[in-house]
Amino acid sequence: MKKVAIIMGSDSDWPVVKAAAQQLKAWDIPFEAHILSAHRTPEQAARFAQAARSEGFGVIIAAAGMAAHLAGVLAGNTTLPVIGIPMRGGAADGLDALLATVQMPSGVPVATVALNGAKNAAVLAAQMLAVTDEALAAKLAATKEDMRAQIAQKDAALQAELAGL
Amino acid sequence: MKKVAIIMGSDSDWPVVKAAAQQLKAWDIPFEAHILSAHRTPEQAARFAQAARSEGFGVIIAAAGMAAHLAGVLAGNTTLPVIGIPMRGGAADGLDALLATVQMPSGVPVATVALNGAKNAAVLAAQMLAVTDEALAAKLAATKEDMRAQIAQKDAALQAELAGL
Amino acid sequence: MKKVAIIMGSDSDWPVVKAAAQQLKAWDIPFEAHILSAHRTPEQAARFAQAARSEGFGVIIAAAGMAAHLAGVLAGNTTLPVIGIPMRGGAADGLDALLATVQMPSGVPVATVALNGAKNAAVLAAQMLAVTDEALAAKLAATKEDMRAQIAQKDAALQAELAGL
Amino acid sequence: MKKVAIIMGSDSDWPVVKAAAQQLKAWDIPFEAHILSAHRTPEQAARFAQAARSEGFGVIIAAAGMAAHLAGVLAGNTTLPVIGIPMRGGAADGLDALLATVQMPSGVPVATVALNGAKNAAVLAAQMLAVTDEALAAKLAATKEDMRAQIAQKDAALQAELAGL
Amino acid sequence: MKKVAIIMGSDSDWPVVKAAAQQLKAWDIPFEAHILSAHRTPEQAARFAQAARSEGFGVIIAAAGMAAHLAGVLAGNTTLPVIGIPMRGGAADGLDALLATVQMPSGVPVATVALNGAKNAAVLAAQMLAVTDEALAAKLAATKEDMRAQIAQKDAALQAELAGL
Amino acid sequence: MKKVAIIMGSDSDWPVVKAAAQQLKAWDIPFEAHILSAHRTPEQAARFAQAARSEGFGVIIAAAGMAAHLAGVLAGNTTLPVIGIPMRGGAADGLDALLATVQMPSGVPVATVALNGAKNAAVLAAQMLAVTDEALAAKLAATKEDMRAQIAQKDAALQAELAGL
Amino acid sequence: MKKVAIIMGSDSDWPVVKAAAQQLKAWDIPFEAHILSAHRTPEQAARFAQAARSEGFGVIIAAAGMAAHLAGVLAGNTTLPVIGIPMRGGAADGLDALLATVQMPSGVPVATVALNGAKNAAVLAAQMLAVTDEALAAKLAATKEDMRAQIAQKDAALQAELAGL
Amino acid sequence: MKKVAIIMGSDSDWPVVKAAAQQLKAWDIPFEAHILSAHRTPEQAARFAQAARSEGFGVIIAAAGMAAHLAGVLAGNTTLPVIGIPMRGGAADGLDALLATVQMPSGVPVATVALNGAKNAAVLAAQMLAVTDEALAAKLAATKEDMRAQIAQKDAALQAELAGL
Repeated sequence: MKKVAIIMGSDSDWPVVKAAAQQLKAWDIPFEAHILSAHRTPEQAARFAQAARSEGFGVIIAAAGMAAHLAGVLAGNTTLPVIGIPMRGGAADGLDALLATVQMPSGVPVATVALNGAKNAAVLAAQMLAVTDEALAAKLAATKEDMRAQIAQKDAALQAELAGL
Repeated sequence: MKKVAIIMGSDSDWPVVKAAAQQLKAWDIPFEAHILSAHRTPEQAARFAQAARSEGFGVIIAAAGMAAHLAGVLAGNTTLPVIGIPMRGGAADGLDALLATVQMPSGVPVATVALNGAKNAAVLAAQMLAVTDEALAAKLAATKEDMRAQIAQKDAALQAELAGL
Repeated sequence: MKKVAIIMGSDSDWPVVKAAAQQLKAWDIPFEAHILSAHRTPEQAARFAQAARSEGFGVIIAAAGMAAHLAGVLAGNTTLPVIGIPMRGGAADGLDALLATVQMPSGVPVATVALNGAKNAAVLAAQMLAVTDEALAAKLAATKEDMRAQIAQKDAALQAELAGL
Repeated sequence: MKKVAIIMGSDSDWPVVKAAAQQLKAWDIPFEAHILSAHRTPEQAARFAQAARSEGFGVIIAAAGMAAHLAGVLAGNTTLPVIGIPMRGGAADGLDALLATVQMPSGVPVATVALNGAKNAAVLAAQMLAVTDEALAAKLAATKEDMRAQIAQKDAALQAELAGL
Repeated sequence: MKKVAIIMGSDSDWPVVKAAAQQLKAWDIPFEAHILSAHRTPEQAARFAQAARSEGFGVIIAAAGMAAHLAGVLAGNTTLPVIGIPMRGGAADGLDALLATVQMPSGVPVATVALNGAKNAAVLAAQMLAVTDEALAAKLAATKEDMRAQIAQKDAALQAELAGL
Repeated sequence: MKKVAIIMGSDSDWPVVKAAAQQLKAWDIPFEAHILSAHRTPEQAARFAQAARSEGFGVIIAAAGMAAHLAGVLAGNTTLPVIGIPMRGGAADGLDALLATVQMPSGVPVATVALNGAKNAAVLAAQMLAVTDEALAAKLAATKEDMRAQIAQKDAALQAELAGL
Repeated sequence: MKKVAIIMGSDSDWPVVKAAAQQLKAWDIPFEAHILSAHRTPEQAARFAQAARSEGFGVIIAAAGMAAHLAGVLAGNTTLPVIGIPMRGGAADGLDALLATVQMPSGVPVATVALNGAKNAAVLAAQMLAVTDEALAAKLAATKEDMRAQIAQKDAALQAELAGL
Repeated sequence: MKKVAIIMGSDSDWPVVKAAAQQLKAWDIPFEAHILSAHRTPEQAARFAQAARSEGFGVIIAAAGMAAHLAGVLAGNTTLPVIGIPMRGGAADGLDALLATVQMPSGVPVATVALNGAKNAAVLAAQMLAVTDEALAAKLAATKEDMRAQIAQKDAALQAELAGL
């Protein structure tokens, strides 16, 4: 299976981004995680993206905050799909990172997820790999079924609580 | 090759969304386009998403404005990757659609592109399909090369204009 | 009397939403509360809304945050009035939920109240039921009178505090 | 049947607000429309709201822009449900009116619809009246069915257009 | 001298608004403070404003949050200048209150100060009264001189701190 | 009577600001109007404000856009009340000017009116002068009465239009 | 004298950016202008910035819109000061470009000017070069004097217009 | 070498602004720091800026919050480059200060850095001085190299952490 690359602009992003790694691990999807900065290590970031396809990666996840250029810089250097996680913080508590991640020019998209949406970035990466991987698609469907069951359980718990209102 | 589904909430979105269809056609990627509304035809929208994988679709593109629920509703009913195009218009000229598209809850991502970013939605869909399709990947790389050449041409034209400033 | 349905997208909304239940209970208005998600249990949510009128409901209150689709999805599946409570949190601390709740397309309104406005959702539901229910209207008028008296009391307390400034 | 009151803060709102009147007329719901200003005719506005229930009104629709106080002022003077239409224009092209309409204090809700959402205000008013009026509920259901048929028609037209892409 | 009225929508505003009272007291400007709500005690609020000029008031200060209608409602009922203090809190942490206070329609201004700007509301009220009161104008000028001296003192303290950097 | 000073940062503001001059003229309030820039003629602006009280001015109106510093700079150099008119245009179509005008530090208020609110700036200036001027207060009350009559006239016109709906 | 580099992300920026070139030309400051894209020609952009100092450039001006990464990417590859011009357009009509330009991480600043502020970017570049260039500093001072004179002229014109009000 | 001036509007800004002083000190760049207010000590602020060039300053850094006029006022009184640090706090937690700092009129730029970006203001000042100072340029290049090394170290640490996931 193709690997997923998880790139973050700073090690301070890791406590949030870790959720992506954990989700990929739970589904046995191979991945690597690296710290690379669009502004502090621009050459390393560019070179990573240029080599990613031939190195066996299928999807790149990039997390960055404020003027979040990381996902865009990676997308400019590869034809792999790049998923951007805008990180909270900054002038509008993440709205700046969201706009800097999503508003990409024509020809160079970044697949943007919610602020701090590390788990959803992993789910989206898995969905991309599952387009042609039936076994992985089955795992995703099972997880969806689990979510339904959990909601039903929580609703049952709520009914108990309502009785005592 | 898997097909791409282009779903839009209203026929008034078509003049913008057409760019996605044209880009897919230019790369010979099979696609269908439909009008389905999260609010006016909720059952049809849900059923389309539930059947999409077995109908041979690999990616769903969804375009909607204002309280843009379409991409999210489709994503809730499939494990295929769903790309959301927030449409301009609404309370904050599209910022409402952007937030309503991207801020999805954990487990149900929408791969959001820029406002009115129909062409980029097609590019992203192609990138997803190209993860395991070398021929399509080569087309994407060639297009990237073309973009570079165009910039160089435009820079040359600018030099001529500068001479006469 | 018709029942009020209180639907929330996650059990984490309950501490806020509970205020709606308590207000309805205080006025002896029958209600049910359930957890249903537009994205995780889309079919259950749709089916609940489709059956609500025939099940004896008169109003539906829906609380959700971020890309708050729940109220809109319910409104797409019923002709009952749907009241939306946008929950705080998300990219703009609730502004995303507010816009995703209120900016509904033509033909499918959601009666939106303030962020976290659970008590006001209950008051609004009661006002709707009181259109043709004089006894309930009298209760609402009495509560309004109480509010006035409380303000007068607080003003009196302020005068005392001013004396010691 | 109870009447609907349509109140607007300025005659310049009428071209937008007229859509509410037309929708009510189409469903044979009795209504009155008046110009009353929270700031220029505060006493008249207060008196109208105080008398509305006894005058046979069941719902009040209020449209205003900028620091949109009209709906809130009416809501402070009645126990009838008040629907607020925030009008475009102002510091943030309507976002100011939206926030001024929806962010009501506890105990005094305004059922807020989308910016310039006059038609939806009428639909919401009709839904409120239809809680206990089966005939009107049937009309609403028929209109919902019409919307579905229109989407299907538009999708058919799109298929024709796609053929010639 | 004319009196200043300090009106607030809720007793929870008092810890902030108190600064206005203290500043007026420091300059020996007579004032009253009251709790009056545009939505919960609309008649009392209107009546207060209608009688304010004849009761000896020269300026009205009004503090309110969220859909902050209080200053506007008072301004609609008097020809005295009304100063609005938008209070923090609400959908955009006070931006809603700011817009609801300042965006008044033509003919009915509210003199808006900064969020939670209670002290500045008092300064502004004093400036209005000082237009024709030389003694009060002299106090204002002295306070301005004090501010200058304080800045100079703080700069001197900074120089000491810099030495030890 | 004290004069009103109308200061604007650029002659391009005049088409909007003229409304203030016209309103003052209509009430026979003496005024001067000048172009002075906080950034391009900082010394002239400071000197004007410093001398304003002794030159017979009672109120200063200042209009500026974008990083609207003019009102603040004038307020820093006088103890007269300064009314700020934030002008449309700029990064957020005037929201930048509004925030730059209203968010003044403690001790130096600017009485801010709505975006482009030139007429209201004049009304507010008149209200300030009328605190101790009964004749002017009577004019303001008469204008308020006129506004009421106009609304009544417009409501009558609306009734005619409704008949033909 | 060191040269100024004017880099823009697209030839569509030129009609706005041209004002920078014209201002530099008016002061006889040598400059070059080029089209280089952070996303479409990332290697060329990086290489330009890396070589800029040794090629005789003293300042780089970079103009880009939407997720405006150009200035940041250049700043990551040079120790020359980089001035960023955020271009209007995008999700919030330029606010996205402003935030993406200014919110740079620690160690890699971009000197950001106003939206579409091409002329000011040139003025700022000239100010940087004039730190150690007395002749250029004198030109800047003369221009500042011209601005003052123009304001005085416009004020005189206004006085004439006021006479005929 | 030319000195850098660090001006702040209030001593409460110092804990943030100190980072600029420390960075300049680390590079042995001479600087002074002062508290001067655009609104409370307008004359002192103007005079400082007017004299700065002849006093041996090469760059001015100005930090202010809310309606952040300080940088603009200084820029209006000098031809030296002025760097503005918008401080967090205010109506939109710093967005107001950012807009008030960056949106300067034509002819009077302020080189704006990120919210609370004190260190980056120092880096930018150093970059300006290094345009014609090779020794300082070498220090900046060395610091850039250090940043790269730190990222590499952090990536190595991450790999260790990944092993134990």
